[in-house]
Amino acid sequence: MSRIVFVNGAFVPYEEASVPIMDRGFLFADGIYDVAAVIDGKLVDNEAHLARLVRCLRDIGIESPYTIEEWTRHEEELVTRNGLSEGLVYMQVTRGVFERDFAFPPESVKPTVVMFTQAKSIASSKLAKTGAGVITTPDLRWKRRDIKSIALLAQVLAKQEAVRAGVAEAWMVEEDGYVTEGASSTAFIITRDGRIVTRPLSNAILPGITRRAVMRLAEEQGLAVEERLFTVAEAQDAAEAFFTSASAFVMPAVTIDGKPVGDGKPGPLTKRLRALYLDMAAASNSGNMR
Amino acid sequence: MSRIVFVNGAFVPYEEASVPIMDRGFLFADGIYDVAAVIDGKLVDNEAHLARLVRCLRDIGIESPYTIEEWTRHEEELVTRNGLSEGLVYMQVTRGVFERDFAFPPESVKPTVVMFTQAKSIASSKLAKTGAGVITTPDLRWKRRDIKSIALLAQVLAKQEAVRAGVAEAWMVEEDGYVTEGASSTAFIITRDGRIVTRPLSNAILPGITRRAVMRLAEEQGLAVEERLFTVAEAQDAAEAFFTSASAFVMPAVTIDGKPVGDGKPGPLTKRLRALYLDMAAASNSGNMR
Repeated sequence: MSRIVFVNGAFVPYEEASVPIMDRGFLFADGIYDVAAVIDGKLVDNEAHLARLVRCLRDIGIESPYTIEEWTRHEEELVTRNGLSEGLVYMQVTRGVFERDFAFPPESVKPTVVMFTQAKSIASSKLAKTGAGVITTPDLRWKRRDIKSIALLAQVLAKQEAVRAGVAEAWMVEEDGYVTEGASSTAFIITRDGRIVTRPLSNAILPGITRRAVMRLAEEQGLAVEERLFTVAEAQDAAEAFFTSASAFVMPAVTIDGKPVGDGKPGPLTKRLRALYLDMAAASNSGNMR
Repeated sequence: MSRIVFVNGAFVPYEEASVPIMDRGFLFADGIYDVAAVIDGKLVDNEAHLARLVRCLRDIGIESPYTIEEWTRHEEELVTRNGLSEGLVYMQVTRGVFERDFAFPPESVKPTVVMFTQAKSIASSKLAKTGAGVITTPDLRWKRRDIKSIALLAQVLAKQEAVRAGVAEAWMVEEDGYVTEGASSTAFIITRDGRIVTRPLSNAILPGITRRAVMRLAEEQGLAVEERLFTVAEAQDAAEAFFTSASAFVMPAVTIDGKPVGDGKPGPLTKRLRALYLDMAAASNSGNMR
């Protein structure tokens, strides 16, 4: 089965999928993206991803080209056409194609929409069994990190630092010493008295969809969830640590800058949260989506 | 004459110029750009632009695909093929095309190169005669503004605010109240005692090529040039103000947030600096490039 992607309403072979060089996504990073997981051929927590996509588009003055229903239909068709069982659906919208100029193009210019799937082990991730290493790096990003824009160069450079260090993720740290989030994930720690801690929402971080689902699942289990800042030192000294994203679900962080967290293995509460999330993802397949 | 652009070594009709959707410029803003002016069919201060392009590429770990000589040859051919007399040559390099993943692709992946020309009145700009209005807006950008990356969403939003306010440029302001630079230009003021003031180079601003040329020209004329921070209030209260870029050269800023600077007309020293820069640009055409 050859790979099919979605470009501006059409399902086209991957090899033929392109955008004009004057696309504002290519010239200005003038666009928004989102990513939803697929498990057993079904989208996970998809409505929340689409709601964030539409909100972020509105934040930068782009009207969503599709309704939630239309987005969902296109995603599902893309999953079907690619026979995707486990992986991701990627969606990107840019301000369209127009002669290069910083200011917005005329309203008649239509946004560009690109979607594609990626096969990937998520529920069955091997890394989740051993846990991931994390490094820390200064957070170089702009001040509207609550907007999931395609201006990702800072995140690319942070992730590459992680790769160079032989680990899976980089946690970014503000000048004040507090962790913001991972290059492509939300950062969590679990204190020695069992409190699940993550940074409160603000312009400093992306409002993670998996973050929200995990917090809700934890609260439903009567676990203590605390939204507050934490430093690298506190994270290294925590009982457990993990990070969440659509493509990692709940991923144990077992070292931070080379220092083991707890005993350097995935912690019991992290494993429990991962299992709860996997159950939720499986339940979503039967239509019982939260 | 139909428009010809440059894509990865080939000169192609504009209508056919595209990049694959997996280009890292489109997905991650993982690339660098630069812009050089063309006057009377000749590139202005082009070596300085190319040196900055190559330096910025190196800063994000991309090797320049061409030598300075090769870049120049391609630019000149593009100018000739488009019969460009006055305007811009735009150059962009991205980390190339590879399956989406934040980390760098393998070294075998070749950078993408795109170049195009834009016809534009620069020396003959009408706006330079009346002067431009400027608004101010919070600087939302990342911390490595010395890198001329294509992650330009913050600048796009700033410029659009200017357009909405009916003016030509937005000066961005740090939380500490000091002006950094324009959305696509360097900000200058001239004090009442005739000192030309602009922000010193750092990670907070782009090292403007036109900025540097104008500072050198001013110093050669025995004018006082001072690199220091200034606030919006000081700029509004200055004798003159202006901004510089490859596409604006020296542009008088005659209002700031609606307040006239000086008498609200292009100031005498600003006009003199613009004339000096135009002379330099003309001289560059006869091969006497600085």
